[in-house]
Amino acid sequence: MTSPTIRYLGQKDAIQLDEELMGECGYKLEQLMELAGLSCASSILEAFPQAKKILIVVGPGNNGGDGLVCARHLKLFGYEPEIFIPKALQKDLYLALANQCSTFEIPILSLTPQLEEINQNYHLIVDALFGFSFKPPVRPEFSAIMTNMINSTTPCCSIDIPSGWDVEKGPTELSQYLKPKMLISLTAPKLCAKFFNGEFHYLGGRFVPPKIEKKYDLNLPQYLHTTCCYRLS
Amino acid sequence: MTSPTIRYLGQKDAIQLDEELMGECGYKLEQLMELAGLSCASSILEAFPQAKKILIVVGPGNNGGDGLVCARHLKLFGYEPEIFIPKALQKDLYLALANQCSTFEIPILSLTPQLEEINQNYHLIVDALFGFSFKPPVRPEFSAIMTNMINSTTPCCSIDIPSGWDVEKGPTELSQYLKPKMLISLTAPKLCAKFFNGEFHYLGGRFVPPKIEKKYDLNLPQYLHTTCCYRLS
Repeated sequence: MTSPTIRYLGQKDAIQLDEELMGECGYKLEQLMELAGLSCASSILEAFPQAKKILIVVGPGNNGGDGLVCARHLKLFGYEPEIFIPKALQKDLYLALANQCSTFEIPILSLTPQLEEINQNYHLIVDALFGFSFKPPVRPEFSAIMTNMINSTTPCCSIDIPSGWDVEKGPTELSQYLKPKMLISLTAPKLCAKFFNGEFHYLGGRFVPPKIEKKYDLNLPQYLHTTCCYRLS
Repeated sequence: MTSPTIRYLGQKDAIQLDEELMGECGYKLEQLMELAGLSCASSILEAFPQAKKILIVVGPGNNGGDGLVCARHLKLFGYEPEIFIPKALQKDLYLALANQCSTFEIPILSLTPQLEEINQNYHLIVDALFGFSFKPPVRPEFSAIMTNMINSTTPCCSIDIPSGWDVEKGPTELSQYLKPKMLISLTAPKLCAKFFNGEFHYLGGRFVPPKIEKKYDLNLPQYLHTTCCYRLS
C-alpha cells in the first residue's frame, strides 16, 4: 500500500510548510490542530479497535496540542484516554484544549506514570511529546517518562515523530530509543519516518491546498471518501 | 432510522448550548466551526455523491462560517464548489475562512447568481445563509438570492436551519418558502426541523461533551466509527 512517490520532508521544509499553511493559506492553528488530532484518533481507531485505556503523553508544543485534540476525539470514539503532561502548558490554546479534555472527564494524571503502571493499566501509549521542531537531546524534565515509554511493553503510537528521534536522521542514541508500533505522519512524512519499522504507518492532516502540495512536491496519496487518515504501510 | 427520542431544541436553548460549548467547555469557535463544516461536507458526500458543481450561499454569521468550512472540505472531497456571499463578511475569522477558500482556488462569485444560471450550472445549492440566531423577516440585501434559491430546480441542502424559516415555527411566509431536499442539523436538531419533509435529514457536529448532552437531555444517536455525521431520516 506504500505510495512510492510520497515525499519525506526535512525539518526546514516541514517548518516552512507549516508556516505557509498559517501564513498565506490563512489557516488558524486551532483549525489545523483540530483536523490533525482528529486524524490521529481516526487512525488509532483503525489500527487499535480493541484498545480501551490509552495513555496520552502531552509535550509542551504543537505536538502536545495534537495529542490533546486526539484524546478528546478518542473519548468521543468510546476509548478511555488518560493524559499525562510532564511540563506545565503555557499557551492559551493548549490550556483551552486541556480544559476541553477536563470537560470530557478525561483524567489528567498528576504524577509520572511508572513503568509497571503503564504496562498494567494501558493498552496503548500515544506519544505526543515532541514534533518536527524537536532538536536532541531530550531535556531532563522529560527523561523519566521517556524512559518508561521506551521500556514499556505497552505498544506506542507516535504522532508525527517518534519522540527523541532526530527529525531527519531518526534514532541517534542507539542504546535506548523509542520503537513505536505505529506512526502517524501529519501533513507529509518527515525524513525520520524512513527509519520507522513498526506495524502501522498512517498519514493524517487532510487539509493541504493543491497548490501547496504542488509547490512542495508532496505527492500525497488520495484520501478515500470522507476519511481523514490514510494507511501508508 | 429516526431516533424517536432525540430532542429538538428551541432557539433559546440552542443559543445557550452554543454559549456553553464556548464558555465552560472551553471550545474555540474555530474548532466547532471546523468540525461542523466538515460534518456538512461529509453528509453531502453521503447524500449527493454524484453532484459536481455546488453553489454555497454564505451568510454574514456563524452559519456562513460553517458554509465556508464546508466549501473547503467539499473541494478536498473532489467537488467543484463555488461561493456566493451576498453581504460582505466582517469578522476576522470569516475573512480567514474565505481566504482559505481562495487558497483552494474556490471561486467567489461577485454577482448574485441568476435563476437560470443556478438551474443550469449547479447540481446542488448549499444554504448557509442563516442559522439558529435568525429572526424573520429576511433583510432586503438577501431577498434576490433567497428568491432564486426558492425558485430553483436545483436541489438545496440547508445547514442547520432552512433559511427564512422561523427557528421554532418553521416556514412562516407560506406563499413562498425554501423547501430543501436535505437538512443538516448541527449539534442537535432545532424545533423547525419537525417541519422538514425533504429526503435527507442528517445530524452533524460530533463534539458535544457527555455532561452537556445529559444537561440538555439531547439523546443524541451514536455516531458510527470515525464518521462525523449521522443520518436521522
